[in-house]
Amino acid sequence: MKFSKRASNIKTSEIREILKLIENPEIISFAGGLPAPELFPKEEIIKLTAEVINNEGNEALQYGTTEGYNPLRKAILEQRLKPFGITGTIDNILITSGSQQGLDFTGKLFIDKDDVIIVEKPSYLGAINAFRVYEAQFVEVSMDKDGMIIEELEEKLKLYPNAKFIYTIPDFHNPSGITMSLERRKQLADIASKYKVPVLEDSPYGELVLEGEKLPPIKSFDTDGYVIYFGTFSKTFCPGLRLGWIFGDEKVINKYVTLKQSSDLQCSSLDQRIIAYYLNNYNLDEHIEKIKSVYRKRRNLMFDCMDEFLPKEIKYTRSKGGLFTWLELREDIDTVKLLEEALKFNVAFVPGSSFFASGGHTNYLRLNYSNMPEDKIVEGIKRLSKLLKEYYKES
Amino acid sequence: MKFSKRASNIKTSEIREILKLIENPEIISFAGGLPAPELFPKEEIIKLTAEVINNEGNEALQYGTTEGYNPLRKAILEQRLKPFGITGTIDNILITSGSQQGLDFTGKLFIDKDDVIIVEKPSYLGAINAFRVYEAQFVEVSMDKDGMIIEELEEKLKLYPNAKFIYTIPDFHNPSGITMSLERRKQLADIASKYKVPVLEDSPYGELVLEGEKLPPIKSFDTDGYVIYFGTFSKTFCPGLRLGWIFGDEKVINKYVTLKQSSDLQCSSLDQRIIAYYLNNYNLDEHIEKIKSVYRKRRNLMFDCMDEFLPKEIKYTRSKGGLFTWLELREDIDTVKLLEEALKFNVAFVPGSSFFASGGHTNYLRLNYSNMPEDKIVEGIKRLSKLLKEYYKES
Repeated sequence: MKFSKRASNIKTSEIREILKLIENPEIISFAGGLPAPELFPKEEIIKLTAEVINNEGNEALQYGTTEGYNPLRKAILEQRLKPFGITGTIDNILITSGSQQGLDFTGKLFIDKDDVIIVEKPSYLGAINAFRVYEAQFVEVSMDKDGMIIEELEEKLKLYPNAKFIYTIPDFHNPSGITMSLERRKQLADIASKYKVPVLEDSPYGELVLEGEKLPPIKSFDTDGYVIYFGTFSKTFCPGLRLGWIFGDEKVINKYVTLKQSSDLQCSSLDQRIIAYYLNNYNLDEHIEKIKSVYRKRRNLMFDCMDEFLPKEIKYTRSKGGLFTWLELREDIDTVKLLEEALKFNVAFVPGSSFFASGGHTNYLRLNYSNMPEDKIVEGIKRLSKLLKEYYKES
Repeated sequence: MKFSKRASNIKTSEIREILKLIENPEIISFAGGLPAPELFPKEEIIKLTAEVINNEGNEALQYGTTEGYNPLRKAILEQRLKPFGITGTIDNILITSGSQQGLDFTGKLFIDKDDVIIVEKPSYLGAINAFRVYEAQFVEVSMDKDGMIIEELEEKLKLYPNAKFIYTIPDFHNPSGITMSLERRKQLADIASKYKVPVLEDSPYGELVLEGEKLPPIKSFDTDGYVIYFGTFSKTFCPGLRLGWIFGDEKVINKYVTLKQSSDLQCSSLDQRIIAYYLNNYNLDEHIEKIKSVYRKRRNLMFDCMDEFLPKEIKYTRSKGGLFTWLELREDIDTVKLLEEALKFNVAFVPGSSFFASGGHTNYLRLNYSNMPEDKIVEGIKRLSKLLKEYYKES
């Protein structure tokens, strides 16, 4: 068999391969981006499924429109966008199979072979992989504590005037944990209009504010329709139902809809209704508060443990929300090798290099604080610290 | 915004656009490929959802592996493949979001711009659209009453030795209703090996045998792993859960898995378990018998009505299974225009030309017999016949 050229660009996600390895319950895993399953609204889902099927079983199990279940689109608009300053109609929304599908469709819609796209350095590896399939050339823009550095972005835009889009994760960035400042959000919306270049705003963690105020999305400052916003229920409800959305200009959304038609026709008719009924019968905001209070405790505990046990030379992001913190180790330490050793101590993380579109940067690692209970956080950071101390002793 | 070149190849599916128009309940629609919703196992799904969540709610709502839920892969292997002569292990199976997703991934995995692929004439328009996105060149092979004509296929393979794959729907073909003969199935498996060219066997209707014996899949005659088989629960359980599968050589399946990782990570963890629990706690074969007996009555009634009311000159396929029959009208009749008129009489079908990869053939139309109750079948065929008699009177 002869495969397509693009097929050779496709890499297996390191995170997912690790997730498969660490099914051993002895391992304390800070690797995945898994929400805490004990918080999933299980009883509600049982009850709502019965309600959905009793009310509209014929439709809930039948083919539906590609755009998505209208009451779900409406609830997203009213509850998950309008409160944050994003306004529109349901025609601005396409329901997707998680925001990952939105990223894949974005590659399909925008990228021809060798097209330049601009990403943060580092960036979400699932996005890098999705865009790489379409044979993109990545141009990276550095970040500081306020997110993507706008001056450097403008330099790159001048250097690559045909760049197809700018991809950013402004809220509690994956993997770096950084939050883009209000000022930069406004600047980025302006740049989108000025250079007529789409900005893809990926915000899977935007509602998981653990410290300070929620900042308005870049999309809320968009005046010309150049910002495309990606949201998901994976972190606020549950990831297993695979539901997210794209919000954008109606003309652009129509193009995404056509792509979804030929890709998988539509999302699960049942799962869409379960979430729509939940949004209309319960209070997701209250549920998110519950999630946040659990994650806040875990995050604070992890930071406290890192402050106490990690070698003092190691820098990490005091993320103000989301699921991750990001550690910078001494330059000569290779975190892929470190992971191999860490697994012997039954503790896991994600090595940082796969988050860099151009590779390198082997001395970073990402830790998740949402998934492990408190005693395991303490024990896991102790184990990791013990291992790292060996490295720092050597120097 | 500047879109990719491939984005300009993407057409909206005529069928889905029509489906949106005909929400008017006055219209008798033979257009979609919708199963009969009154047969969906609703009570069972309510019960099973509660069971799934009570048993393994943490996993059923959490991220899972890209390959799919192992008990589902196992049940497909044991129940939906082994009885038809297809054997392997769960590593030969990837769970997909309907078989449509399998087709999209196939385009992604095999097709570079301008690559030749071979399809039947006519072929499933959802497959044509999925492959067109990847900028394929279509080469069509004619069909007779026994399916794809093998001599013509071999000629085309000699003419296009770099053809990437052959796409076929051997069982109750969409749209033509034709069943590929046993002899041709064996020949096609041989051709795959002889020319080392993958055969994509798409069998969404294979289990819906309404007359005669079920023929073995092409895959059951495959000795060298060149046949890739696509199955789905959309027609035997329900389409709303969006679950299908790809069965193939492990090395090929691994490539599909990597594509799914970057496309949408995985299918719904909950929906996969609902079907797996159904397969392990109920008898899907018995359920399919129930579906078949309803469809058989509807099909027979539609054929009886067409024999009685349609102009005698019109030829149609006496499909032995599946959901569709296919009508050939006089050459000068344009079925897109006919549809516009038919809608005035509140009856709908799908015009045939979009099923031809190279266009033309405006004098065909497809009728579905699975979705409408019997009284509407009679009335709908009467309305359509009345309209068609006007055309045939003119000549």
